[in-house]
Amino acid sequence: RAERVAHFEQDVWSIFTPLALECQAVNLGQGFMNFSPPDFVVEAAREAVTRNECNQYSHPKGRPRLRNALSKSYSPLFNRTLDPETEIVVTAGANEGIFSIFAGYLDQGSEVILMEPFFDQYISNITMNGGVPVYCPIRPKGDISKDMSASEWKIDIKELESKITPRSKIIVLNTPHNPIGKVFSREELEEIGALATKHNLLIISDEVYDRLYFNPRNHQRIATLDGLWERTITVGSGGKTFGTTGWRIGWLIGPKALVEPALAAHTRIVFCVNSPLQEAIAVGFEQADERGFFGSQISAYEHKREKLLSVFRELGLPCTIPEGSYFILVNTDKIQVPENYEFPDLLHRRPKDFRTCYWLTKEIGVCAIPPTEFYSKPNQALAENFARFAFCKTDETLDAAVERLRKLK
Amino acid sequence: RAERVAHFEQDVWSIFTPLALECQAVNLGQGFMNFSPPDFVVEAAREAVTRNECNQYSHPKGRPRLRNALSKSYSPLFNRTLDPETEIVVTAGANEGIFSIFAGYLDQGSEVILMEPFFDQYISNITMNGGVPVYCPIRPKGDISKDMSASEWKIDIKELESKITPRSKIIVLNTPHNPIGKVFSREELEEIGALATKHNLLIISDEVYDRLYFNPRNHQRIATLDGLWERTITVGSGGKTFGTTGWRIGWLIGPKALVEPALAAHTRIVFCVNSPLQEAIAVGFEQADERGFFGSQISAYEHKREKLLSVFRELGLPCTIPEGSYFILVNTDKIQVPENYEFPDLLHRRPKDFRTCYWLTKEIGVCAIPPTEFYSKPNQALAENFARFAFCKTDETLDAAVERLRKLK
Ligand SMILES: CSCCC(=O)C(=O)O
Ligand SMILES: CSCCC(=O)C(=O)O
Repeated sequence: RAERVAHFEQDVWSIFTPLALECQAVNLGQGFMNFSPPDFVVEAAREAVTRNECNQYSHPKGRPRLRNALSKSYSPLFNRTLDPETEIVVTAGANEGIFSIFAGYLDQGSEVILMEPFFDQYISNITMNGGVPVYCPIRPKGDISKDMSASEWKIDIKELESKITPRSKIIVLNTPHNPIGKVFSREELEEIGALATKHNLLIISDEVYDRLYFNPRNHQRIATLDGLWERTITVGSGGKTFGTTGWRIGWLIGPKALVEPALAAHTRIVFCVNSPLQEAIAVGFEQADERGFFGSQISAYEHKREKLLSVFRELGLPCTIPEGSYFILVNTDKIQVPENYEFPDLLHRRPKDFRTCYWLTKEIGVCAIPPTEFYSKPNQALAENFARFAFCKTDETLDAAVERLRKLK
Repeated sequence: RAERVAHFEQDVWSIFTPLALECQAVNLGQGFMNFSPPDFVVEAAREAVTRNECNQYSHPKGRPRLRNALSKSYSPLFNRTLDPETEIVVTAGANEGIFSIFAGYLDQGSEVILMEPFFDQYISNITMNGGVPVYCPIRPKGDISKDMSASEWKIDIKELESKITPRSKIIVLNTPHNPIGKVFSREELEEIGALATKHNLLIISDEVYDRLYFNPRNHQRIATLDGLWERTITVGSGGKTFGTTGWRIGWLIGPKALVEPALAAHTRIVFCVNSPLQEAIAVGFEQADERGFFGSQISAYEHKREKLLSVFRELGLPCTIPEGSYFILVNTDKIQVPENYEFPDLLHRRPKDFRTCYWLTKEIGVCAIPPTEFYSKPNQALAENFARFAFCKTDETLDAAVERLRKLK
């Protein structure tokens, strides 16, 4: 067993997703949809597998049709014409895309600045490639004993700058943010961008929830700010965009010279991405606008967000109200887990929120994710009193969750 | 750009596949099918995308249905009951599976013994994970100026042992072999296995062509030999098995303790494999036997092999007659490429077979792959006078290739 995998603990997903199944809990844990992708996208997948050229290897960069569709859909959002030949790379999910960037850029000891909380897989993606994660917390500046907007979670830009060393190579931004639901404002992005420029850092902008932001907040792209296109790789996700988390289609967008090292790594790691589902996501982008898909998806998610928020209000559990993504961070201070409750061995050395979420899953019948999974060890205390609930679920599922959560009254 | 990707040259696939398209050459280069996967597998994919649970994340190990189907199909071939929970891991193609094994096992400076020629991606998969490839040639022992069986390409077991050092961790076996078409005999596997045991090496047995072997040779699995299950991870491929190279479904089979480090790496690299096409490959295995699929596929490939061999006989170009896989190595000594022919810049520092294959693609209209791509630099001279032709193509395509190759007369 290599050193790079020797210290891995069991990941939160493979604890809570099976647990939810086993307990027949309503699963608001792992962020996947329990409703179908839009018919026109499913239909496109059904059609693709009947054409043999969609069943064989694609170019490592991705299928031309998908790269063209991405260029057409994203060029107006980036205020520039994205070259589908050199500025877009299709990856086996956003995860493999991010892994490939680290593989393409990090040498032994290179440092990567992460804002905390962060999507948990970043850490292994960095360390497996010889890198060292360095953390800067995003702190709730409001009163966490009341509802607050995700915008009140803030980075202290001085603190962020203090984390930069001569070994820093990359800074990772995630907006809309998982698990906070924060959509970074233009001013915040400008500050972060200025730091990256001053210290010559590559920016990875993980924007997998870029089509999921809620009135009145608009998603902003750091790559569109003055001088930042040249140092930014933006990461996108077909799974988040079209409700197909199991299709494993993601993409990287950035200048040719920046995406090239990631493409070189990606080509060796997976060679290419599955072809027929690339074709279907291409059709998704080709038809999304005329069908008003992104707008109606946002409306549907706004409705789901309200449904779930309302039960926490009813229960007096303070929430971070997300501006984007499909997660709600809930303050669990007031939830009383019985003192002598028996937890399985695998939770013994885990922080308190693992036990809260376990108990919620098992006894209340609603699964949530412990957010300390998204924190470095020294900062886990910041998150022990929260749980993350996902609302990318059918209205019926959310209604069932509401019903069960009322047992907490 | 990280050191680990800095030295990559353009890979052969992204040179020759686009070139073939551009020249409208008959493409016998990259090994993909230009015929459809079997109807029952395509139908299963069409059905899977209509069930939402097939559109969302799978377990990182793979979908239970596919692991169960693999266990059922492979257990008799391994002479043991394979536990679908712990002894099978589904990967994003065999390539990502092999990458994940190296990521799970290699530390800086760990050595991996490769038999040469080898599938080109092995090298980057090893070096990206800090490993060092060490080469031992498989040599043609017959007269290469005549047709010979692939079985006449042989490893010198003493030479192989001489490559082992205290840093050796893994030996990679590939049978049926790409590009030679050799199916290792039981005796050869026993010798290799004995070495692995003596020096305590992990064996990666890349058996992606395990359903494609030709009378009278039968594919043998090194993991079934006495005492070798405990040190072998066998790699399989849905793409090769069902003609779906673009679906990116592969798998690892081995004891729990052996596959675990690879699973740990795989989970971080891609999280999971695309769900709907896993489901379809599961149906493929569930129905293959009752439909006699593997047997009729072998007959079809035997017929294709004969078609292509016959034109080389007609032209007096000596061949290695493959016992498995879908490649023919052809001795190109007698092919006269005009002295003053103009080659593009990107071929200038490449060995002679790159130029032969380029000329064949451009002037004869049939694309083949230069096998020096599968050799370490010092040993490329062993392969400069060969070209690799793939016969995983429709009969019409092979007929068209035969027609064009006759221009060589
Ligand atoms: C690696 S599965 C995680 C899914 C997801 O993005 C989340 O729930 O945060
Ligand atoms: C990485 S694509 C190569 C396909 C293949 O297996 C081959 O042609 O050898």
